[in-house]
Amino acid sequence: MTTAPVGSVLIVGAGLLGASIGLCLRNLGVETWLRDASPTAEAVGEDIGAGLSERAWVGQMPEPQLVVVATPPDVTVSLVVAALEEFPGAVVTDVASVKGAILRGLEATGADLTRYVGSHPMAGREKSGPVAARGELFTSMPWVLCSSEQTAPSARRLVKALAVELGATVTEMSADEHDTTVALISHLPQVMSSLLASRLQDTPLHHLALSGQGLRDTTRIAGSDPGLWVQILTANAASIVPALHGVQEDLQRLISTLEAPTAPGSRLDVAQLIAEGNAGQARIPGKHGGAPKAFAQLTVLVDDVPGTIAHLLTFIGEIGINLEDLRLDHSPGQPVGLAEVSVEPNRREELVEALTTNGWKVVQ
Amino acid sequence: MTTAPVGSVLIVGAGLLGASIGLCLRNLGVETWLRDASPTAEAVGEDIGAGLSERAWVGQMPEPQLVVVATPPDVTVSLVVAALEEFPGAVVTDVASVKGAILRGLEATGADLTRYVGSHPMAGREKSGPVAARGELFTSMPWVLCSSEQTAPSARRLVKALAVELGATVTEMSADEHDTTVALISHLPQVMSSLLASRLQDTPLHHLALSGQGLRDTTRIAGSDPGLWVQILTANAASIVPALHGVQEDLQRLISTLEAPTAPGSRLDVAQLIAEGNAGQARIPGKHGGAPKAFAQLTVLVDDVPGTIAHLLTFIGEIGINLEDLRLDHSPGQPVGLAEVSVEPNRREELVEALTTNGWKVVQ
Repeated sequence: MTTAPVGSVLIVGAGLLGASIGLCLRNLGVETWLRDASPTAEAVGEDIGAGLSERAWVGQMPEPQLVVVATPPDVTVSLVVAALEEFPGAVVTDVASVKGAILRGLEATGADLTRYVGSHPMAGREKSGPVAARGELFTSMPWVLCSSEQTAPSARRLVKALAVELGATVTEMSADEHDTTVALISHLPQVMSSLLASRLQDTPLHHLALSGQGLRDTTRIAGSDPGLWVQILTANAASIVPALHGVQEDLQRLISTLEAPTAPGSRLDVAQLIAEGNAGQARIPGKHGGAPKAFAQLTVLVDDVPGTIAHLLTFIGEIGINLEDLRLDHSPGQPVGLAEVSVEPNRREELVEALTTNGWKVVQ
Repeated sequence: MTTAPVGSVLIVGAGLLGASIGLCLRNLGVETWLRDASPTAEAVGEDIGAGLSERAWVGQMPEPQLVVVATPPDVTVSLVVAALEEFPGAVVTDVASVKGAILRGLEATGADLTRYVGSHPMAGREKSGPVAARGELFTSMPWVLCSSEQTAPSARRLVKALAVELGATVTEMSADEHDTTVALISHLPQVMSSLLASRLQDTPLHHLALSGQGLRDTTRIAGSDPGLWVQILTANAASIVPALHGVQEDLQRLISTLEAPTAPGSRLDVAQLIAEGNAGQARIPGKHGGAPKAFAQLTVLVDDVPGTIAHLLTFIGEIGINLEDLRLDHSPGQPVGLAEVSVEPNRREELVEALTTNGWKVVQ
C-alpha cells in the first residue's frame, strides 16, 4: 500500500465524525484545526482535544495540506467548493454517506476536482456532536474511498493515508458503485426495518410480550434518527428506488399467493420466496470479512446475576475454544438468561461435553 | 395458578418438539409413550429416552390421560380427531404454530372438542428430528394456550399443567387472537427478512464485504427452513395478508416520495416513515418481559483470542455491574473484535471510567 504522510489538517464541521477524526489525528501528533458554523461546537472541539479552534487563534492557521468536510450532506457541496477555492494547494475530502449526488453537485460548479476525493467512513454511534466523539471510532471499520476520473493520484494517496492512520480498512470504488452498494447493504435494511416496526404501533403490549429474538433483531435499527435518514434516503433515492421496486414485486407476488393459499402452485411460490432469502442471506460474509461461514451454536442456561456470563466464557476460554459470537437471549417473565454461544463447528461437541460435565445446563 | 398433575402421556410425532416434550416428561418421572408414522423415528425417540415406543411394547400402553399431537401442521387436524376417538377419556392438545385453521378444521369434523386445547410452545431450534431434542427446550420460553368455547375447564388445566411442568411461561388467548399476534411478531418479521435478503442474491461479494451489524441482524432469520415456513405462512394467510397490505401501502408511499425526492413535502414523508418505525420499535418489551427499556451501550476493543471476552466480563462482574446484553461486532479484514456491552444507563459512566483506568480500550 502506497500512502503519503498526512501533514496539517483542517476539519470543517466539529460534529461526531469531524471531532473523532480530530481526536485521532491529535493523538498521532498531526497539526489539526477546527472550523464550525457554530462557535460553541468549535470551542468544545478544541476543549476535548480534537484540534485548534480557528476562531480562537485568528490568523495563525497555516494553509492546510488536507481539508476534511464533515458537515451534514446538504451543505457538503458548497463547503467542498469553498475549501478548494480558499486553499489552492490543499486536497479536500468529505465524509457524506452518499457520494454520487455530492460528486455531481461538485461537477456542476466547474470546480477543480483534481484535488477532491470522496470518503465514506462507515462508522458512527447513536449519539451526535463533538462531545460524543471518540478517537478510535474508525478502528477496524470500513472506509470507502471514491476517486473520480479527475482525481490526481497524489490526492487519492493522501486521503487513503488519512483513513489508514485512523485505523480504518480502506476499500476503493466509484461514487456510483458506492451508492448502489450502500443502497442494498445499509439503506434497504433501514427501510425494511422501519416498515416492519411501524406495523407494531397499535399492537397490544401483551401481544408484544411474546416477542422473540427474531423480532428484536429485525427491528433494532428501526430506532435510528429520522433527521439523519431523511438526508441519506433522499440523497441516494436513485439507487434505493430500484431495490424497493424489487421488494414491491416480490411482496405483491406473496400477497397474491397468500390471498389464495389453496390455489395450485401457491405453496411453491411461498417456498421460493423463503429459499431466495436463504440464498441471499448465505452470501453475507462472516466475521473478519472472511468467506460466509456457518458457526455452530449452543445455548446455555445462565442465572441473570453479575459474573455468570463471565464465568461461562472464562470456562470456554480455558478449554482453548475461541468464542466466535455470543448472544444473550431474553426470557419473558423469568430472571434467567439463555446465552447462545457460537464456535467453530468442529469444536461444538467437545464444548457441549465439557460444559455438561462441569454442571452447566446446555439447553440446545 | 391452579394446575392438575400430569399422569400418563402419549406423544404423537417424535420430531424435535415431541421428543423434547418426552425427554422433559421422562425426567420428571411421568409415564410417556411415543407414536410416530416412522418406525425409525419412534425407535430413536425411545433410544434417546423420550418415551416408550408403542410399537416395541405392543398392547402394553395404558389409555393416556393426555395426548400431545406434535406433527407437521398439515396432518394435525386428522390426528387430533383420531386421538379424541381412540381415547375417549383423554385430553388432546397439539403444538402447531398456527391455531385458528386447526380449530376450524376440528369444528368442521363435528368432533367432541370439550377435551381439546390448542398449544403453541414458542420454542425451537435450527435442527429437526428426535436426535435434536433437548429436555430443556421450553425452559423460560412462552407457551400460548388456546382454549375454545367448547373446552372443559379440566382439560384447560391439564394442558396448562403440562406447559408449567416443562418450564414454559404460559399465556392464554383465543386461537384467532394468537394467530393475529404471531402474524405480527413472528411471521411478518420472517417475510420482511426474506424479502430483504433475497435482494442480495446478485450483489457482488466485495460489496457485501462492507456489511455491518445492521444487515446481519435484519437478515439473520432469512436463513430459516422454506418447508416449515410454507406451512406456517399458508396456514396463517388470513392474519398475515392485512399486515402485508399495510407494509405495501407504506412502501408505495415511500417509493412515490423517493421517485420525486425534491418535491414539496417529500422530506417530511420520509421522516414520518422512520419516526413511525421508531414508535413501533420502542413498544417491544425489554429483557424479562419488562417494560421497554433503553440500556446504555459502550463498545470495547478486544483481541480476537480465547479468553479475552471472558476477562472483560469477569472485570465487569467484579465491579458489580450486571451485563444486560453483549454483542460481538465483526470487523471486516482485521483480527480484532468490538464488544458492545449493554448496562443500566446510570452505571455506564462508572464502567467506562473503570475500564479505561484498567487498560481496556473503550471505543464508543
